[in-house]
Parts: sequence; structure tokens; C-alpha cells
Amino acid sequence: MVKVGIIGVGTVGESVAKILVENQDVISARAGKQIEVKKGVVRNLAKKRDVNIALTDNVDDILEDSEIDIVVELMGGVDEAYEVVTKALKNGKAVVTANKALLAYHRYELAELAQNQAFEYEASVAGGIPIINALRDGLSANHIESIMGIMNGTCNYMLTKMRDEGVAYERILKEAQELGYAEADPTFDVGGYDAAHKLLILASIAYGIDAKPEDILIEGIENVTQDDIAFAKEFGYEIKLLGIAKKDQNEVELRVHASLISKEEMIAKIDGVMNGISVVGDKVGETLYYGPGAGGDATASAVVANIIDIARSGKSTPMLGFDRPMEGKLTLKNSDDITSRYYLRINVSDKTGVLAKITKIFEQNNISVETMIQKPLDETSANLLISTHNAKESDIQTMITTLQEQEFVNTKPVMIRIV
Amino acid sequence: MVKVGIIGVGTVGESVAKILVENQDVISARAGKQIEVKKGVVRNLAKKRDVNIALTDNVDDILEDSEIDIVVELMGGVDEAYEVVTKALKNGKAVVTANKALLAYHRYELAELAQNQAFEYEASVAGGIPIINALRDGLSANHIESIMGIMNGTCNYMLTKMRDEGVAYERILKEAQELGYAEADPTFDVGGYDAAHKLLILASIAYGIDAKPEDILIEGIENVTQDDIAFAKEFGYEIKLLGIAKKDQNEVELRVHASLISKEEMIAKIDGVMNGISVVGDKVGETLYYGPGAGGDATASAVVANIIDIARSGKSTPMLGFDRPMEGKLTLKNSDDITSRYYLRINVSDKTGVLAKITKIFEQNNISVETMIQKPLDETSANLLISTHNAKESDIQTMITTLQEQEFVNTKPVMIRIV
Repeated sequence: MVKVGIIGVGTVGESVAKILVENQDVISARAGKQIEVKKGVVRNLAKKRDVNIALTDNVDDILEDSEIDIVVELMGGVDEAYEVVTKALKNGKAVVTANKALLAYHRYELAELAQNQAFEYEASVAGGIPIINALRDGLSANHIESIMGIMNGTCNYMLTKMRDEGVAYERILKEAQELGYAEADPTFDVGGYDAAHKLLILASIAYGIDAKPEDILIEGIENVTQDDIAFAKEFGYEIKLLGIAKKDQNEVELRVHASLISKEEMIAKIDGVMNGISVVGDKVGETLYYGPGAGGDATASAVVANIIDIARSGKSTPMLGFDRPMEGKLTLKNSDDITSRYYLRINVSDKTGVLAKITKIFEQNNISVETMIQKPLDETSANLLISTHNAKESDIQTMITTLQEQEFVNTKPVMIRIV
Repeated sequence: MVKVGIIGVGTVGESVAKILVENQDVISARAGKQIEVKKGVVRNLAKKRDVNIALTDNVDDILEDSEIDIVVELMGGVDEAYEVVTKALKNGKAVVTANKALLAYHRYELAELAQNQAFEYEASVAGGIPIINALRDGLSANHIESIMGIMNGTCNYMLTKMRDEGVAYERILKEAQELGYAEADPTFDVGGYDAAHKLLILASIAYGIDAKPEDILIEGIENVTQDDIAFAKEFGYEIKLLGIAKKDQNEVELRVHASLISKEEMIAKIDGVMNGISVVGDKVGETLYYGPGAGGDATASAVVANIIDIARSGKSTPMLGFDRPMEGKLTLKNSDDITSRYYLRINVSDKTGVLAKITKIFEQNNISVETMIQKPLDETSANLLISTHNAKESDIQTMITTLQEQEFVNTKPVMIRIV
């Protein structure tokens, strides 16, 4: 009999408790053991919950219960969760968490602490998709060349709706909030931070690279408009918020941003709230993993899979996939050094000579134009929609600043990277 | 130091040996150990090989070498391979194999023998895609509702080419043979047998079900024509060879056949030689795994991942995912009891009254027509392209026999199931 304590019995915690009961036939046959939730910790004991387990509001009732083998941390947040899982490990317990923020900041300290104990976190990236499992075990023979993922269902839902219904960002955001796909303050999702946390976790497993959210390029989808979507359609692209990790010699670039991607790519075909992650290994080539990135049951499916793993065999794999650092360790590439193709939308005054001035600025910044479309906005202004050949991030950023300073450029130019 | 012996040093074996050298930096960091190929067994020692390992033509040089920890079986075939891996296990070695035929016939005996030893086989299904890993570990919390997979790259390549280039099956087959995608005798691939072997392996992990190829419905793509592809296009379908496992109460249906599938489904979007497997779990919903199903390096990527797993932790999971049978074991559904929608192509004499007679026969067999297209073939005959509502397999088979006996039906009607 394996005993589990759940810290944080919200939507996912309730699902975990229910799955362990409802699917116990198959779970105990697979694990070779009975698995039981002994206790759950909640903040508010008075609140009615749809689950039949003993509840307490004191984490120590779990952390110091010697009968409990596995602590499931579902409380969220960083500092308090870090304290809780640290204490759980010190008290000899295995830990399962779905907490991506905790891992984005503390995964290396935790891997150090959990050298001889199981610490699993499948649910922290892309919910129900077993991507940690795939990357850490299934693709372990490969140098990972790149990871490119739709890791935030909220953004993918919104971008899909904007494309299919032709309506503005603000209206789709409101709709997503009403449906519960987006939070009241949507910044964490639409600003790319949620995807960045997940990307950092995957980057550690793929490359052994230690970086924090503030170290990498993170942009969201807030500036995407119907003009951009029309451009994408015309040139055979989809617009997706992608988390990207890419190895280049001994450096790894990590970035999250809205991206134009050829609609022929498998990952471009993923619509709605679904997530999908493409991984290119030097030996296997491209593999892709698709599924629900959120939702109580999907996330709990991953949490329970980790519990079963631990019940089967305790610790079987180093937490972040590396038993020891690789010789010739990889380092994080400076964002300024990233090269990419770019798409720019520039709102300009519709006057003679403006086009010549704009193209001059491109030339002065070593940016070579691939396609250009001019779309009138009203009597006096127009949008220039421009895609470039490969260019350096720092050159693009400098050029955008220069453009913005021109009296014939009406608003800050919007840029979307082409991958 | 972990020592490996490779039995069968062909394309995949050579790749395994090379990956262990070329990627040893990342492999040893992940495994926490050095891994080395000590020896390889080949049939013909005289043949020149592109790999630098000691070779022998005697399997016992590996099986009885007490220094060798892991035996990698890549010889193929059933009986001899079974003998070899059995002896390896008896001699206390861990086994890694890519041999799907061996597993299609002997996986339960092997699981019994390997109760306390590692026996891994990731490469046996869908080459480089870590689908065994996903199904056995990542989705272990779920009752699996269905598996639907493009598990044979040869067939998918051919069907994609037929659709895109509008040419006949025979010509595409010849081209696939010239490119090395199809064997001189292509039956194993185009007849669905290769996919069936893989499906049986997945069905054991998902359902604990013991079945052999001769127990299940296996059909291939040999009868697909441009008429069928035109019908599929018109009604929004793709034609794919699918391996399907589906749970219905306490029964599981297992079948491999050409299928019409809505082109909106993710799996329908997989083209060319690529493989993809969709798995629906009762808790997680649909997840899908995509990647290369064949090729030396992709297959070797999976073999080496298994070697790393074993180096890391020995045996960590029961070979077929179940530590003990589930209570209320699932049984195999009789093929006659399968229900499906069907598409039929019937070559008929173009005479007055024939349509009425055909529809009468449908009615007598309890088959309800959904759509019908009549396409003239020449002055005297026409193709009827018919899709049905849900019907029973045995009723369809009886009706096809009846139709075939009619003097106005010119050839045996062709049937493709709609999923």
C-alpha cells in the first residue's frame, strides 16, 4: 500500500483523488500496489469539496506523517511551495508536483536535494501530454537540436478564434475569460510567461541549461491584429505563440513569442486549446507530442502517472535527466545574437517619399526586405506589412527604435518573428 | 561501465554502435555510466561494415560472455530470435529488441521470463517515436478508450503519393520499391501485417490483452483506387491505413485496415512516410505522438534510449505495463461484431433497374445508405460509390457476398471502413 498526501485540493487535486479511486482497478494492476490518498491540505476547511478524503489546513499533518510516502504539491506559487517540497524531501518523502513556477525558479536546488529521492513533475509542462517522459527517457540518446512548442492553450485558443472569426484580440480575450480559458488578469498567459516557465523546464532536460524567466526573451500575443493574420494567410503562415529552444554550437537560445510558422508544419496544424511540442533530435529527427495542456483531469492524469512510476520503482531517472553535467556544457545565447526572419507592421503617414525613407532605414540597419505590402488605413495613413530575410535581433531592435523616431511613423512598429 | 552485445549488425545495429560513440558525451552524462559495445554478431564475417566493433558469427560469444550486461537483439524473425533472447535472459542479461514479429508472437512468454530482468522494446513500434514509453508510463493512470495509429510508413507514403499525384497504386508501389520504402515482396507492409504486429504490442500495454496476428482483422491498401480517393476528397476524408484498438465495455476490438477518416482529425494530417499514433484515455482525453516510424538512426535512437534506461535503473516497469492482470480482464471482440460506417465501391452494369436492385439488397441486410454517387466507367458499366450509416461487420460481409453473386455486379465490391 502506497499512501499519498495532497497539498492543495483544488480542481487538479480533486481529480487526482478521484482518479485514484475510479481507476484503481487498472492503476493497482499496473503499479502492483494499492495507492490511496490518506489526507489533503486545504486553506479553507469550511469550503465544500467534491471529494471524499480527510482534510486538514496544516501542511505538517502531511509532511510529518510517517505513513505518507508521496507528497503531491498542487498549491501553486513559488516561495511557500518551495518550503513545502523541501521539507517533504528532508522528511524522506517522494514528491510529485504540477507547479511550473516553482520549477522555473528552483529546479536545480530541488534536483540537488532529490538526488536519492523521487521528484516528479510531468504535469508541469503541457498538462496531460507526457512530454517530460518523452524528452527525459524516450529521446535520451539524442543531442536535442530544437524544441518548438505550443505550450499555452489560452493563447492558441485566442489565435485560432481570431483567425477563424476575424474579430479583434480584445473581443476574443473577453470571450476566453467568460469561458474560463483566460484569467481575469490574463498577463501570465497572453504575455508568454506561462509558456516561458514550461520552456525553461524542457531546456534543462534537453540541454542541462540553468536559466530563469528573467534571463530569456519573453513576448506575448497582445499586439497581434487582423492585419497580421491576413498577411499570414496570404503567405501561407499560421500565427502561434511558440516556446523555442534551439542549439547552435555550444549555445542555446531560449525564447517565447508570437511566431509566423509555415502552415505545412505539423505544429502549425494544432488549433484551439490544444498544446503540441515538436522536438528535433540529431538521431531521431522530428517527433511531435500533442494533447490537452490544461484541465483538471488531463493534468491529474500526469500527476497520477508520476505516482504510479514512484510506486513501481521509486527513483529511476535523475530529476532533470542528467546524472552529471555534460562535458563542454552549453550556455545561454544572448537574445541580441538571435537570428531570425522577421515580419513588421509599420503604421505610416501616406505621403510621397515615405516608402523610400523606410527602405533606406532598412538598408542602413543591414535588414534585407523579402516581401512588402502596403494597405491603406484611412485618408492619411497606411500599414506597411514587411517580411525580411534572415537578420540579427539586435539590428531589428535598433531599426525599430529608429523607425519609431521618424515623424512619418505613427505608432511603434509591431514585429513578429518568422520561424 | 555498461557493456552491450549487438546480435544482428545491419542498418539499425550499425546506427546503435555509432550513436553510442558519437553521442557518448550526452549519453554518459544522462546515464551516469559509460556505455560501450563490446561485440557484435553477424551472419557473414566477410561482409564489409561501416562500424568499428569486434565481430563474431557465434551468438554464444555474446550470450555466454559474463562481461556483457545488455543483449541487443536486431536479428529479426521469430523462432531463432526467441531462442536467443530466452537464452540471454536465462544467462542473467537485460535484453533490448526492435523485433515486432518476435513480440507479436511471444511477448507474454517473454514477460513471464523477464519478471525480474529488464526487457525493453521501444523500437518495435513506430521506430523513433517513444510510444511504448508514453503508453506504459505516461498514460498509466487511464483506462485507454482507443488507440488509432498510422503505424506503417510505406503505406502512408503510398497513399499520400496516390492522393497528391493522382496515379495508380501499382505505379506508386514500383516507385516506393525503387526508393527502398517498400520491399521486393511488399505484402508484409501493404497487406497490413507489419501494422498488426505493432498494434498487438500496444494492445497488450493498453489492455493486457493477449492476441496473435491470426486472431484479428487485418486488411491492407491493395484495393484502394483513384475513385476512392476522389470520393474521400469530395466528402472531406483522408484515406489512411490505420491500426485500431477500441474498448467497448469488457471487450476490445483490434483491427488493421484502410480507413476513411475526417481530414479535420490530427491523425489525418500526417502525410508521407511519417507515423502517428492517437491514444484516447478516459481521463487525459486525446494525445497524439508523431515522428519517423523507420530508418536506421530513428530506430536506433529508441534502442539506445532503452539501453540508457537500463543503465540508469535496471528494470523499472513491468515489461507489458501490468504487474498483475486487471480484475475483470478484457477479452477480444469477435470481428463479426464490430460496428462501423462503411464505404463501398460497386462496379455495376449500367442498366435500368440496377440501382433499385442494389438498394433493395442494402435494405435486406439492414444497411442504411448515407450517400451515393454513380460514376460511369464506360458505355456499359458504372461505379457506385456508397457510404453507409453505422452497420454491423457481419451484415456488411454478408451483403458483399450477396452483391457479388448478382449478374449486374461486375467485380467483387471494394469496402473501406469509415472511422
